[in-house]
Amino acid sequence: MRRPQDIDDIVALVCRDMQRHIGRGRVADYIPALARIDPRQFGIAVALIDGRAAAAGDADTAFSVQSISKVFTLTLALEKLGDGLWKRVGREPSGSAFNSIVQLESERGIPRNPLINAGALVVADALLGEGGPEGAIAAIVGLLRRLAGDARVSIDEEVAASEGETGFRNASLANFLRASGNLRGAVADGLQVYVHQCALSMNCRQLARAGLYLANQGVDPLSGAEVTTPLRARRINAIMMTCGHYDASGDFAFRVGLPGKSGVGGGILAIAPRHGAVAVWSPGLSPQGSSLVGVLALQRLASLTGWSVF
Amino acid sequence: MRRPQDIDDIVALVCRDMQRHIGRGRVADYIPALARIDPRQFGIAVALIDGRAAAAGDADTAFSVQSISKVFTLTLALEKLGDGLWKRVGREPSGSAFNSIVQLESERGIPRNPLINAGALVVADALLGEGGPEGAIAAIVGLLRRLAGDARVSIDEEVAASEGETGFRNASLANFLRASGNLRGAVADGLQVYVHQCALSMNCRQLARAGLYLANQGVDPLSGAEVTTPLRARRINAIMMTCGHYDASGDFAFRVGLPGKSGVGGGILAIAPRHGAVAVWSPGLSPQGSSLVGVLALQRLASLTGWSVF
Amino acid sequence: MRRPQDIDDIVALVCRDMQRHIGRGRVADYIPALARIDPRQFGIAVALIDGRAAAAGDADTAFSVQSISKVFTLTLALEKLGDGLWKRVGREPSGSAFNSIVQLESERGIPRNPLINAGALVVADALLGEGGPEGAIAAIVGLLRRLAGDARVSIDEEVAASEGETGFRNASLANFLRASGNLRGAVADGLQVYVHQCALSMNCRQLARAGLYLANQGVDPLSGAEVTTPLRARRINAIMMTCGHYDASGDFAFRVGLPGKSGVGGGILAIAPRHGAVAVWSPGLSPQGSSLVGVLALQRLASLTGWSVF
Amino acid sequence: MRRPQDIDDIVALVCRDMQRHIGRGRVADYIPALARIDPRQFGIAVALIDGRAAAAGDADTAFSVQSISKVFTLTLALEKLGDGLWKRVGREPSGSAFNSIVQLESERGIPRNPLINAGALVVADALLGEGGPEGAIAAIVGLLRRLAGDARVSIDEEVAASEGETGFRNASLANFLRASGNLRGAVADGLQVYVHQCALSMNCRQLARAGLYLANQGVDPLSGAEVTTPLRARRINAIMMTCGHYDASGDFAFRVGLPGKSGVGGGILAIAPRHGAVAVWSPGLSPQGSSLVGVLALQRLASLTGWSVF
Repeated sequence: MRRPQDIDDIVALVCRDMQRHIGRGRVADYIPALARIDPRQFGIAVALIDGRAAAAGDADTAFSVQSISKVFTLTLALEKLGDGLWKRVGREPSGSAFNSIVQLESERGIPRNPLINAGALVVADALLGEGGPEGAIAAIVGLLRRLAGDARVSIDEEVAASEGETGFRNASLANFLRASGNLRGAVADGLQVYVHQCALSMNCRQLARAGLYLANQGVDPLSGAEVTTPLRARRINAIMMTCGHYDASGDFAFRVGLPGKSGVGGGILAIAPRHGAVAVWSPGLSPQGSSLVGVLALQRLASLTGWSVF
Repeated sequence: MRRPQDIDDIVALVCRDMQRHIGRGRVADYIPALARIDPRQFGIAVALIDGRAAAAGDADTAFSVQSISKVFTLTLALEKLGDGLWKRVGREPSGSAFNSIVQLESERGIPRNPLINAGALVVADALLGEGGPEGAIAAIVGLLRRLAGDARVSIDEEVAASEGETGFRNASLANFLRASGNLRGAVADGLQVYVHQCALSMNCRQLARAGLYLANQGVDPLSGAEVTTPLRARRINAIMMTCGHYDASGDFAFRVGLPGKSGVGGGILAIAPRHGAVAVWSPGLSPQGSSLVGVLALQRLASLTGWSVF
Repeated sequence: MRRPQDIDDIVALVCRDMQRHIGRGRVADYIPALARIDPRQFGIAVALIDGRAAAAGDADTAFSVQSISKVFTLTLALEKLGDGLWKRVGREPSGSAFNSIVQLESERGIPRNPLINAGALVVADALLGEGGPEGAIAAIVGLLRRLAGDARVSIDEEVAASEGETGFRNASLANFLRASGNLRGAVADGLQVYVHQCALSMNCRQLARAGLYLANQGVDPLSGAEVTTPLRARRINAIMMTCGHYDASGDFAFRVGLPGKSGVGGGILAIAPRHGAVAVWSPGLSPQGSSLVGVLALQRLASLTGWSVF
Repeated sequence: MRRPQDIDDIVALVCRDMQRHIGRGRVADYIPALARIDPRQFGIAVALIDGRAAAAGDADTAFSVQSISKVFTLTLALEKLGDGLWKRVGREPSGSAFNSIVQLESERGIPRNPLINAGALVVADALLGEGGPEGAIAAIVGLLRRLAGDARVSIDEEVAASEGETGFRNASLANFLRASGNLRGAVADGLQVYVHQCALSMNCRQLARAGLYLANQGVDPLSGAEVTTPLRARRINAIMMTCGHYDASGDFAFRVGLPGKSGVGGGILAIAPRHGAVAVWSPGLSPQGSSLVGVLALQRLASLTGWSVF
């Protein structure tokens, strides 16, 4: 196992190793605003709980976090609802694609877990309160700014407005959930929150920093803020491990060995419990919707650091 | 086999036989405006291609035709699009419930047949033209008035406005179809047509009369109007036989032996090719969503008339 | 509609029309003994309830009836068990392939209908009695000989021994049924009956003759034998209509409009109630497993005779 | 986090805490030889990589390891076939019950992972060599004896002979795999290996000891034997984490936070990487088939030791 002081070298080495892979995979084309991103980009950033940080490549280029946001809305919803949330959403791997509606029907409107789209819609609905969708969106942006320690984190309104086919899929899921009695607010409100959280624009450096509390038992080690309880932090990690990559979750655990969450914008957030958080970004996706080069980079990083939890 | 001249006696006999069953089954409760219908009603009407007609019970009480309307919109869409319609919708039994979304996902947005909700939404979308949803709805009402020979046929706006859970289910299906590229118009427009066609209010007498063209090779025997071609009339009957009752279609063919289409309002239209059309109505439904007493009545009628096509 | 006396001309015309299609489709290759059949063959035979018969093409060439045998074992099982059979097997279209095991799991071991493999295995098991599988097989062969009026009908032991992949599929289904408690006899016994019934070797002329009782309310019009009751004959026809061609049943009803049952040997038996029975044979199959030219021939025949029940 | 030297106290405390739960859940009744086990038993044993061990309750009572054996046969098969095994079996959570056949059909005979029955049958088949099923069984028993450091580990032939409904389910799966070309040996041979591995009889103390190599990068820390490579050990742990408890795998990760594998005999093996291995046993099962009290005990243990990987 490499010594922690080598983290700058390790990150640089991973970045160098990835150069020959850059451009592989296919940029998500069903969200028009994402379809025109140049696939030949790669960024990586690591934040350690002792305060050190390292980054390489396009680590300062902002990208659309998309489904990675589900980790943070889950954190918020657990703080707001407590374990009552688990009556409305499960915590089992789905065994199917991120936007599948099949499971929802066979299990009567209870999404399998909060990291598939249906589950994240329930979580988004749970965040609705007196402030309506605007209030919930403001709370999400506020959380991410605090966690990233950077007030520039914001929502890309062009992406939020550019949903295409995905928008209809999510509307289908949301209406199905509503028909099953598993949305409390209006369908349009839940969708509005969901679409905006996905449109959060962050770079690798901000994202790694924002995930640090999950590597440190729920406490942001830099600010000292208690973001969530130790138990919840571990549980969120567990859900990321078993459900973070849709029907490629088992493969990610097998290859990387860390809790992680991917987004179709090409980003992945991985947590190394007791060590730190890692964000990678490269727009080309595997058929299952995870950044192809991003997974390779994390596999290499985990191998070099010995951070696999297994 | 009873002789056709006995049709008045047969209808009266069936009505008498059904008295002890009336009230069985469960009134559809997921459409609020239907939930308060008195279940203790039963009507039956027969229209023969030679012009005779017979009716008994509550044959003059209007009810919500709901999914029975799909037979008529299919007729219109085939006239408008021809066989091109079959590229957008199949003609196989679905093996699942009327509003299931599972099949839609596994078969990439092509509904199994035009008599399940998803298929009927595609048909409704196909009827959209320059006149928008209002134009399509007017065309449907116009057709039914001509077929029933009764200008009083109209849409119950209270039912159209009272969708409840079903409305969200259908919105889920419509958005899914749109995401799959199988709706050409706006989701809201297709839904508007669909909701209004289901809210058509007709009595047994009107409905039996309206179905007569299907028993007579596409020609309305009373007006002489060519509603559709002989081939299409037979094919619509074939689809009613294999798909007219969702996951109870096989049982209906087994017990009644006639093409038929049920609606959750408690009505059933059955076609006896070369003989006539039959409409029954009783609000209590089987678990599969067909009028429980209605099926019994048709089984008895088919047995007494020998009209089973088998 | 052509007059019945033209039946010879019609059959000859259909045979001539089919010449340009012969050879289309793909011979079943998963049963080794069937894989080497010359696809460039076509036979057709019609038997009318008034005693007339007509045939053309390779109507005297024996072929493996395969799943067409399910119609006859169903007849036997209904005579033996009566309506009790319907507790062990449904009568709904399956919406899936002939040897699918998915439906079986979701519906707890009750096959959807007696014409898919799982349902036919239950029927085969139901025929087991004191005589064991040999006794059941003898009863099936005896029935077919009587119905065909031809003692030469027999089982092709080479085909029975040549199961290949299909054999393992059927063993999978049979073990699943046994695990669900829906086989009474030994798994091997039910499979033995099933494999042998499928290996029945008959030609079109024999097969059309054998199906005649189904066109005549259960009575063999030539021998006068009451093979089954009028009600059961109609019900078997209904099941053939809704379930006779696996996931192409709706399409067959749509195109041909007659109850029918296909076999992967390339044969199809169709029933024209009140008229007669038709057997066609051509080895090339559609992707759904029905004779491609056979369906075209029946479509043409139904069009020329006006025998569609719709 | 408690200090490791407290392990005796912790194990005793967990055992005491479990007393009030003992007897909960339902003993597996579909394997006759298991159905008569007294549910009011509970054992726990911990083996640490530094050589210490602790046990409490019925830790010396042998039980049927059942599916826990899949971890060890997977280890053997990976040594024999290397990564080629992953062409025949996946590594994704199944999202369904342990003996489901649905997934197998939709994914063309490639089981989702090696810890569901279908996957374990492929693994068992992969162990067949010149020595036939007896040779494979001998290799499995030999491995477990070496790992447990106890030559008394053996197969309970009565359990092996007592399969009941499960036997037919597994025969169904094996025949399906064979039909899909994913078994190389005879169906009966693969089943023989599988049935015997499941019938291994071990106590908690032996089982914890046997799992120690997985907590120590593939090396048995007591004997120094290299059982598998560090990479494979981590990967086996990853598969246990995402797939070790069928459709309750996510919940186990959520509650316990350790890789684990349950068996319907009531045992669970859990791995605490870099710490040690734990075996618990209590016959009463949850609806998903894991020991109900066993999971509670592991949850308590993980909480007291801080061994959660998250």
